Amino acid sequence: MADRLTGGDSSLLRRINAAVTLRALRNGRSVTLTQLVGDTGLSRPTVEGVIEGLMESGLVAEVEHPRTTSRQPGTRQRGRPARWFRFRAEAGHVLGIEIGVHGLRVVVADLTGKVLGSHAKDVAETLDAEERLCTVRSTVAEVLKKTGVSRDHLWAVAVGTPGIVDRDGTIRLGTAMPGWTGLDLGARLRRSFSCPVLIENDANLAAIAEHWQGAAVGKGDVVFVMAGLSPGAGSLINGRLHRGFGGAAGEIGALHLLGQEATPERLLSTTGKPLDPLDEAAVARVLRLAREGDEVAQVATDRFLRRLVHDVAALVLALDPELVVVGGWAAGLDGVLEPLREQLALYCLRAPEVAPASLGEEVVAMGALRVALDHVEEQLFAVDPPGSGAR
Amino acid sequence: MADRLTGGDSSLLRRINAAVTLRALRNGRSVTLTQLVGDTGLSRPTVEGVIEGLMESGLVAEVEHPRTTSRQPGTRQRGRPARWFRFRAEAGHVLGIEIGVHGLRVVVADLTGKVLGSHAKDVAETLDAEERLCTVRSTVAEVLKKTGVSRDHLWAVAVGTPGIVDRDGTIRLGTAMPGWTGLDLGARLRRSFSCPVLIENDANLAAIAEHWQGAAVGKGDVVFVMAGLSPGAGSLINGRLHRGFGGAAGEIGALHLLGQEATPERLLSTTGKPLDPLDEAAVARVLRLAREGDEVAQVATDRFLRRLVHDVAALVLALDPELVVVGGWAAGLDGVLEPLREQLALYCLRAPEVAPASLGEEVVAMGALRVALDHVEEQLFAVDPPGSGAR
Repeated sequence: MADRLTGGDSSLLRRINAAVTLRALRNGRSVTLTQLVGDTGLSRPTVEGVIEGLMESGLVAEVEHPRTTSRQPGTRQRGRPARWFRFRAEAGHVLGIEIGVHGLRVVVADLTGKVLGSHAKDVAETLDAEERLCTVRSTVAEVLKKTGVSRDHLWAVAVGTPGIVDRDGTIRLGTAMPGWTGLDLGARLRRSFSCPVLIENDANLAAIAEHWQGAAVGKGDVVFVMAGLSPGAGSLINGRLHRGFGGAAGEIGALHLLGQEATPERLLSTTGKPLDPLDEAAVARVLRLAREGDEVAQVATDRFLRRLVHDVAALVLALDPELVVVGGWAAGLDGVLEPLREQLALYCLRAPEVAPASLGEEVVAMGALRVALDHVEEQLFAVDPPGSGAR
Repeated sequence: MADRLTGGDSSLLRRINAAVTLRALRNGRSVTLTQLVGDTGLSRPTVEGVIEGLMESGLVAEVEHPRTTSRQPGTRQRGRPARWFRFRAEAGHVLGIEIGVHGLRVVVADLTGKVLGSHAKDVAETLDAEERLCTVRSTVAEVLKKTGVSRDHLWAVAVGTPGIVDRDGTIRLGTAMPGWTGLDLGARLRRSFSCPVLIENDANLAAIAEHWQGAAVGKGDVVFVMAGLSPGAGSLINGRLHRGFGGAAGEIGALHLLGQEATPERLLSTTGKPLDPLDEAAVARVLRLAREGDEVAQVATDRFLRRLVHDVAALVLALDPELVVVGGWAAGLDGVLEPLREQLALYCLRAPEVAPASLGEEVVAMGALRVALDHVEEQLFAVDPPGSGAR
């Protein structure tokens, strides 16, 4: 802290006071000035000044008719009636977007994260980048129309997609979709929005989402494994996303390339011919056959599980998380989670908890929503809140 | 920050003011009150008050004879002569200790980290825990005597040792030394000192040391690989140690146990019989034979390097560091670093820089010293500095 503060910085104190006041208001309830003074520990004139500024910027509204249930029964107010205030969650909106191989998803929420609407669209895995971006734009337009949210009221947009994503939003490596590697996705999408657009790896966002309201709530050190043919992962350390120096942290899928001939498609093949890596149905069929007693399928499944266990073990040994959350399509298959748990307990020096992901298909878009909200909150806690003309 | 601050916290401000003043003094130069006012941005009465308190607690001394070179030539002072102050680096001392398989090392320094003396002692790898602790105590006594530092003047002691170390200083798993697993090393050593004693994994401390004054200065995301028969690692993320949830982060050596028969000793064996895992001379001999053209030794060396590359690649893919620093005895051998660099560049999605460690045999003890200093600095920046009776 001493690195960032010099003594007696009054503009910093003003900023902290505004942030503290806003935070006390942000749970959505209406509160009185007196309650705010109590909640924040600030003086009454300070809170009055802060509230004045927040009302000017549209973030706080005075409430005309406070709910009478908030008063103690039998008490009566003396003197001036209390003034009630609330945070205007509708002052702005955020979008969370997933651009995946087989589908797109757009979720819109208010400034408290309340989801107002969402839309998912299946797309062909062969879509080139231009077509895919075009479909993203039309899906966004559809959701905004459906929810009645104006594009001008968007304060932040965050997007999740497979691949290694640079901080500026360029896809450094994205082999899952045609034309994705090298695409400046951030710049392309910023043309459609006047607010900040943030791009992030999909597994990273899934980790954030499960931490926000899924299987990892309250856990600080978490690895989310996107279990598929080539596993990817997102990690939280002390509750914060660990992107790595170049945004490539957790992209453990390449580990099998080292000195091994096996690709995941080959591992799961029962015919000797590699499976189509994106043909999840074919993979699910092999796993089902294995459960039904088909010996060739059982051998193939064992190989697949060994690969998954090895990759997850590498992540666990490197990071030592408290919890591993397993999502992605392979996590939903029977016979994946339990062997993974057993093997990790056997081989890891300190075995983590293993839990299935709980947010389902919306997990990446919800993580994007959280990142967009975080961005807005950072802005709200800065000197000039968004909407005050500083954007 | 808003989580930790409530508005207008004046005791917090006092603490920050003291920390800021102390930091301005801690580079070791003598400064005037006027310079401190300029450096800290605090008011003159505030700085006077802070300095008064720091002098009372023994951390700051008034300097009688300031060096005249500090003044502008040709200028003359008017009115009262300026008062000069300096940080009393000799107000306390810290110890950095390595307890290794083959040797012990103790380093003593003042509060600015200036090393006043050190001592290393070879020990037999077969020493049991009691004998090893006894040798630690006698080595500490020797260093304190040699440097004239009183045991009462020690403000913090930090110790590095192989294994998984719990936060309280218990060795959860330490297979390299007899009797180490389950040892409450922290509690055992605290009996010998009245100051805090911190225990940490040796590779973690090596990472901290190389970041402090070695190959990783200025780099935030660093993996230090302790290259030996079973590699261990320490990681820094944003310049801070990543211990993992249970202190086991980076203990990548167990990865080869998964589905592979090969142990590192077997990998390096040219006779079919595993090498003694602690017999570094035997390993070095195999690597030398390989360089001289011995084909069996070359095959063994290749296997060893493949294992090292695989383990380091797992760390790199999981963490995506900017820099990998390779230390430990295997790093000093010819023909280890270059193949590692080449293979990582080939297989990692974003290859990190690879550099040899630069601090040599003192690396773990120096890392311990830094951790002890960090602990002292945290105390100095708290409300009651050590030495003021709060300890």
